[in-house]
Amino acid sequence: MAPKRVGAWLIGAYGALATTVVVGAKAVARGLCDRTGLVTELAELRGLPLLPLDGLVFGGWDIRRFSVWKRAEELAARDAAIPSGLLPSLKADLRAIDREVRPGTAVNSGPAISVLADPTMQSASETLHDTVERLAGDLEAFRLRHRLDRVVVVNLASTEPPLKVGRKLRRLDDFLRLIRQDRRQEISPSVLYAYAALRGGFPYINFTPSVGASIPALHELALKHQVPFYGNDGKTGETLVKTVLAPLFCYRNLRVLSWKGYNILGGLDGMVLRDQRHKLLKVRSKERVLAGILGYRPYGGVSIEYVPSLGSWKTAWDFIHFEGFLGTRMSLQFIWQGCDAILAAPLVLDLIRLTEFAHRRGEAGPMTHLACFFKDPMGVKEHRFSHQWEILLQYVNQHRAALEAR
Amino acid sequence: MAPKRVGAWLIGAYGALATTVVVGAKAVARGLCDRTGLVTELAELRGLPLLPLDGLVFGGWDIRRFSVWKRAEELAARDAAIPSGLLPSLKADLRAIDREVRPGTAVNSGPAISVLADPTMQSASETLHDTVERLAGDLEAFRLRHRLDRVVVVNLASTEPPLKVGRKLRRLDDFLRLIRQDRRQEISPSVLYAYAALRGGFPYINFTPSVGASIPALHELALKHQVPFYGNDGKTGETLVKTVLAPLFCYRNLRVLSWKGYNILGGLDGMVLRDQRHKLLKVRSKERVLAGILGYRPYGGVSIEYVPSLGSWKTAWDFIHFEGFLGTRMSLQFIWQGCDAILAAPLVLDLIRLTEFAHRRGEAGPMTHLACFFKDPMGVKEHRFSHQWEILLQYVNQHRAALEAR
Amino acid sequence: MAPKRVGAWLIGAYGALATTVVVGAKAVARGLCDRTGLVTELAELRGLPLLPLDGLVFGGWDIRRFSVWKRAEELAARDAAIPSGLLPSLKADLRAIDREVRPGTAVNSGPAISVLADPTMQSASETLHDTVERLAGDLEAFRLRHRLDRVVVVNLASTEPPLKVGRKLRRLDDFLRLIRQDRRQEISPSVLYAYAALRGGFPYINFTPSVGASIPALHELALKHQVPFYGNDGKTGETLVKTVLAPLFCYRNLRVLSWKGYNILGGLDGMVLRDQRHKLLKVRSKERVLAGILGYRPYGGVSIEYVPSLGSWKTAWDFIHFEGFLGTRMSLQFIWQGCDAILAAPLVLDLIRLTEFAHRRGEAGPMTHLACFFKDPMGVKEHRFSHQWEILLQYVNQHRAALEAR
Amino acid sequence: MAPKRVGAWLIGAYGALATTVVVGAKAVARGLCDRTGLVTELAELRGLPLLPLDGLVFGGWDIRRFSVWKRAEELAARDAAIPSGLLPSLKADLRAIDREVRPGTAVNSGPAISVLADPTMQSASETLHDTVERLAGDLEAFRLRHRLDRVVVVNLASTEPPLKVGRKLRRLDDFLRLIRQDRRQEISPSVLYAYAALRGGFPYINFTPSVGASIPALHELALKHQVPFYGNDGKTGETLVKTVLAPLFCYRNLRVLSWKGYNILGGLDGMVLRDQRHKLLKVRSKERVLAGILGYRPYGGVSIEYVPSLGSWKTAWDFIHFEGFLGTRMSLQFIWQGCDAILAAPLVLDLIRLTEFAHRRGEAGPMTHLACFFKDPMGVKEHRFSHQWEILLQYVNQHRAALEAR
Repeated sequence: MAPKRVGAWLIGAYGALATTVVVGAKAVARGLCDRTGLVTELAELRGLPLLPLDGLVFGGWDIRRFSVWKRAEELAARDAAIPSGLLPSLKADLRAIDREVRPGTAVNSGPAISVLADPTMQSASETLHDTVERLAGDLEAFRLRHRLDRVVVVNLASTEPPLKVGRKLRRLDDFLRLIRQDRRQEISPSVLYAYAALRGGFPYINFTPSVGASIPALHELALKHQVPFYGNDGKTGETLVKTVLAPLFCYRNLRVLSWKGYNILGGLDGMVLRDQRHKLLKVRSKERVLAGILGYRPYGGVSIEYVPSLGSWKTAWDFIHFEGFLGTRMSLQFIWQGCDAILAAPLVLDLIRLTEFAHRRGEAGPMTHLACFFKDPMGVKEHRFSHQWEILLQYVNQHRAALEAR
Repeated sequence: MAPKRVGAWLIGAYGALATTVVVGAKAVARGLCDRTGLVTELAELRGLPLLPLDGLVFGGWDIRRFSVWKRAEELAARDAAIPSGLLPSLKADLRAIDREVRPGTAVNSGPAISVLADPTMQSASETLHDTVERLAGDLEAFRLRHRLDRVVVVNLASTEPPLKVGRKLRRLDDFLRLIRQDRRQEISPSVLYAYAALRGGFPYINFTPSVGASIPALHELALKHQVPFYGNDGKTGETLVKTVLAPLFCYRNLRVLSWKGYNILGGLDGMVLRDQRHKLLKVRSKERVLAGILGYRPYGGVSIEYVPSLGSWKTAWDFIHFEGFLGTRMSLQFIWQGCDAILAAPLVLDLIRLTEFAHRRGEAGPMTHLACFFKDPMGVKEHRFSHQWEILLQYVNQHRAALEAR
Repeated sequence: MAPKRVGAWLIGAYGALATTVVVGAKAVARGLCDRTGLVTELAELRGLPLLPLDGLVFGGWDIRRFSVWKRAEELAARDAAIPSGLLPSLKADLRAIDREVRPGTAVNSGPAISVLADPTMQSASETLHDTVERLAGDLEAFRLRHRLDRVVVVNLASTEPPLKVGRKLRRLDDFLRLIRQDRRQEISPSVLYAYAALRGGFPYINFTPSVGASIPALHELALKHQVPFYGNDGKTGETLVKTVLAPLFCYRNLRVLSWKGYNILGGLDGMVLRDQRHKLLKVRSKERVLAGILGYRPYGGVSIEYVPSLGSWKTAWDFIHFEGFLGTRMSLQFIWQGCDAILAAPLVLDLIRLTEFAHRRGEAGPMTHLACFFKDPMGVKEHRFSHQWEILLQYVNQHRAALEAR
Repeated sequence: MAPKRVGAWLIGAYGALATTVVVGAKAVARGLCDRTGLVTELAELRGLPLLPLDGLVFGGWDIRRFSVWKRAEELAARDAAIPSGLLPSLKADLRAIDREVRPGTAVNSGPAISVLADPTMQSASETLHDTVERLAGDLEAFRLRHRLDRVVVVNLASTEPPLKVGRKLRRLDDFLRLIRQDRRQEISPSVLYAYAALRGGFPYINFTPSVGASIPALHELALKHQVPFYGNDGKTGETLVKTVLAPLFCYRNLRVLSWKGYNILGGLDGMVLRDQRHKLLKVRSKERVLAGILGYRPYGGVSIEYVPSLGSWKTAWDFIHFEGFLGTRMSLQFIWQGCDAILAAPLVLDLIRLTEFAHRRGEAGPMTHLACFFKDPMGVKEHRFSHQWEILLQYVNQHRAALEAR
């Protein structure tokens, strides 16, 4: 039986993606739009007793003072990302969520993020220990305030620079010592958020390429508290197309000589990724998929550049140069023009529903059946989208069979 | 154990594709190029004891007086489709094949093909019965002349107009009556070739959208003579990409509003398809795949136009307009620049090898495990390329297991 | 000195383009948007004493019952063609214009237009003579009602099928006889509108490929009444790019082998052009420009297709195959994604201002200095956009010099 | 009257471009191909008594040991840049030119070039003075050996890093002092070559973005010796298209928000440009044109990346985001697929002919009438291609008139 009330706690709550998640959930719940884009509404997944979207209660963290409502207006007016007709009926809903947003943390978040943080939101003298307690308190208070059965925490914040994950992040007790010793340079916000979530027994989803829960210490913590988690980096646009197209070359024995991808995008994401240090993890997770599918690394790579006039929209041009029979060279190009927030938001709702289900069923640790949602799926080497989809279907079918057997 | 000598009888032997098939087989056999493009050389298929490429003996039918050697020179010099450095060492091989080409038939082949036919090659008074006997004789003589274990017939000729397949082509005895009565307007060359092949116990592959063996009467004949056959219309370029991309939209619950595809190509294929009547079957087989995968028919359609300057090359531009979450519209475009002969030739060799294997194993009727090679795979509703590939793998694995069990 | 009050009478007043013209004029006049897109606001044209945009009074004809205000809402909400934030402040303005729209005529307007016409708007028994008197009356009443110095009539209606312009349309008296004899099959609405305008002394601009004023009889009439006129077919998108790009190939002595252009568009324009008969004039005017610039006709042609999901937006893909030194073939492709109404509307305002100026200066007949605004500029063989621009500049400079000399 | 024998001395003689120049000149002279791509063969230029292509004698410098003949074979076989059928009849011609190539200099040529230089070709102890004398000697000996009326020196070598042009390169006597003092870090090969040429009275053309003759000291030298010179950086592909397209946005008052250009190319040019230091000048000359035409600098920039599989071919994708009426945003993209050597070679021949003509006519200093050939035309602010073309036509017409007047 699906639960009545479930919390969704969004990290980066005032961002374009979190706002679209909230607008979308409310619009669907109120019947203002259809369910296009939601994987969990496909016929193939209907067998699972997933929570209804109108049962979701939203809250979250942000490091800026802003407003979900104002962001929604921006996305509608400036970017044509959200239909403007939708907003008036959602004003009360969005305003209510604004009251559920708490200060996050920008400790060691990298140059392009820390510059965005409101300096009055976090005291400079707050130790890591204090931060963690504060964050954990936010989650627990949210749960109690709304009498929630469960809360799923989702990281939707901007990409952090890579974190050298040394020995200190391997074992849980070492990690705890690092917190106690207030070693701020060896940690990042995504890790602190993940820790606060898992420690409190709240499932954690990392939709970004930031480190999040992918360190062994937190894996250990999740299993200890019986909590499921997963990531990293939602697969929404250019990379999705790549993992759909690349198998073509394998199955036809065509040799990919070069695969060069150029992404241009605006918005805050684009602005943060302009910084070479923040771009690193993103590019890495985008580039890994090809070698994983082809079995070799074609010449090329992925480039991401900020073009402010694009707003929330992204254009990607990929040039694929390949060799066929008798050494003859041919090419395939594609141009992807999408709105990341619109592509990602329904997947975030899908992940919240599927994670809540897994948690309810007592599953813990990395949810590898969710690989198809991520560019860099934890513990899964399969990058072919079709095969990842089959993994999800298998999970669904097993559960459906078990439920029907009862 | 793989056989020593197998014949490959190509319909449209002087065409760009047949010539590339021959050049490729000989170049690979002589170690002049690697095996890129050959599906049967992939690790996944290595378990099957397929015939080696140097065991192939080529012959075929054509309705023009020309030469495989001259066509190869043309493809190298004018089109940069075949590397020019390859040809000198293959001259003797290609000249030898020229001597194995026999006159085909252009009876009711449609306006754009019949105009190409050399009028001196087939007597106007030849009845259908005579034609069939002549063609059957060509195959049998070829087999005897070269002491071949087996001969696979492959249709690589230009696309015929659609044939109204009435009741007369349903049952074998009706079909035979139609031949006896010399009803030339109710038949087409691809059907006559298929009949001649199957009657003689020779497997038949239809790489074109022409009717070929897809009428029930010939299905009956194939089973009677215990011969395998398959088709139609090799899946090499734009359609291949479509059947790879379309599932993306399904699995992400994105609604394809319009999918418009424009193909421009030169060469004889382009010239024949310029004729609206010949284009019909091609367009139909190209358009069917999307509805098959998406479950609905998006607005759009496929356009094919002749652009002589492109020679053997084809450029396709596809514009896919789709709707995501909250009704927001996005697009994906792709541009495919390929050489059809180069893409198709290795697949033709793969089909010959896999067909010979099936025949050797005593299999008869439509070889549905070969669906991944065709735009319009007989008796198979699955158009998703990844899934068609899994069907082939399953066949391979079953045979491998059976062979290992011995 | 610029005039105080000038009328702009738009044919197809409820269409997307006319609505955008009105919205734009009012938005600029009220300072709600800047002057991007208006050629007459360029520094190079500032010397001319053109009428200010806030001096324009709008009215027009349409064959449907609809509303400029409703169309504006549609364009904002459904198509994201007009910024939605703009409309509330313009509601009164647009509502006022709705009261100035009169029934047009759909006599012999072609199948795709006549089906749109409200049958109650024009009595079936109305003769051509009656129609012409009615239309002329509308113009005169509009002028008097608003005490206008001048009224410019602009054809923005959908494209009509070609009209066989026989001997009857050569001389004015023959034309008049044809009206008297009520020969409805030998005339079309664009011609009737043009006649009504010119006869009343109102300048006429044809922004469509329909026949309009391009028949010799109306040329004669314009000179007789001392009225300027011009057309045909506004140059806004793909064709504009073509007339900018094509000279490149001339000046570099590169031979264009093929130039294939595919246009997909939605909206009413797209729907009307779906009809082969209506498409004819459009395609003809789009195709003429290349031969005019290159001096030869490259293989190819222009294709226009209706894709409803695109709404007011158009995507064009052009593939240009060219030959360079040593016979080596290369290509240039472009993809144009524009909103025709947004591209055309400021040009319509430019044309109204420049036409009013010419009329005020006593100029009559075809205004060849406006060639740069049209795909098929009357009486001008120069299709190179840069050169057409120079023609306009020369006109501006002559007038400026004359004005300064006074 | 046109001269009988003129020398063309190519810097980077074994490169793909120099080789294509030579192959092309010889092929045209022998009637093996037509004159497509040669600007000087256009009707508009026919009035000038330019030297016939069969009067050209080729020689040059290179820093590698290689061969024009071998490079030609490579370009034909590997890259399909030169038609392979052309070469056999030119073997003797190309072999003869191999004997006319002398060692150049790689002093301070930048990391990516110096690594290519054969270390045995230039003694490490050779002073700048010695180098200059050696180079000057090569030119003079070439002239005498072939009894040439005139020799035009053309720089076709790879792009050098920028040279800080300090006070020392301003005045000629300072420059001479720098040579005497052997200050190798303050000079680059392109400057030494230019100096050797101009000092000997040989016109100099810089087809690359390297410094070459663009320093004031050499300008002074050219005037002193009455020699014409010009550059920099041949305009052949993406930039050519940009200078053709950009005026469209000006004349229609459309605001270019972003113009992002991505170039991918193989070959030696691509390899050298991979080095950030060498790329600098190229990118700078590519980026300057837009601001020059638009009057403002849109967001964006030019990116160049090495993709070895492309060989001599280049693909450029440009994304132009622009704002029209009412703030609505639209886009234009183009994809250029060209072979730089094929595009540039005829222009090099044009420049040699036009330079020889100017020299013969007694013209000296920068030949600003050649602006249309260059990305960064010395002393000319006009970047619009059409207007640059008119400048050339004006020059031609003046000379034609003068010649006819005689």
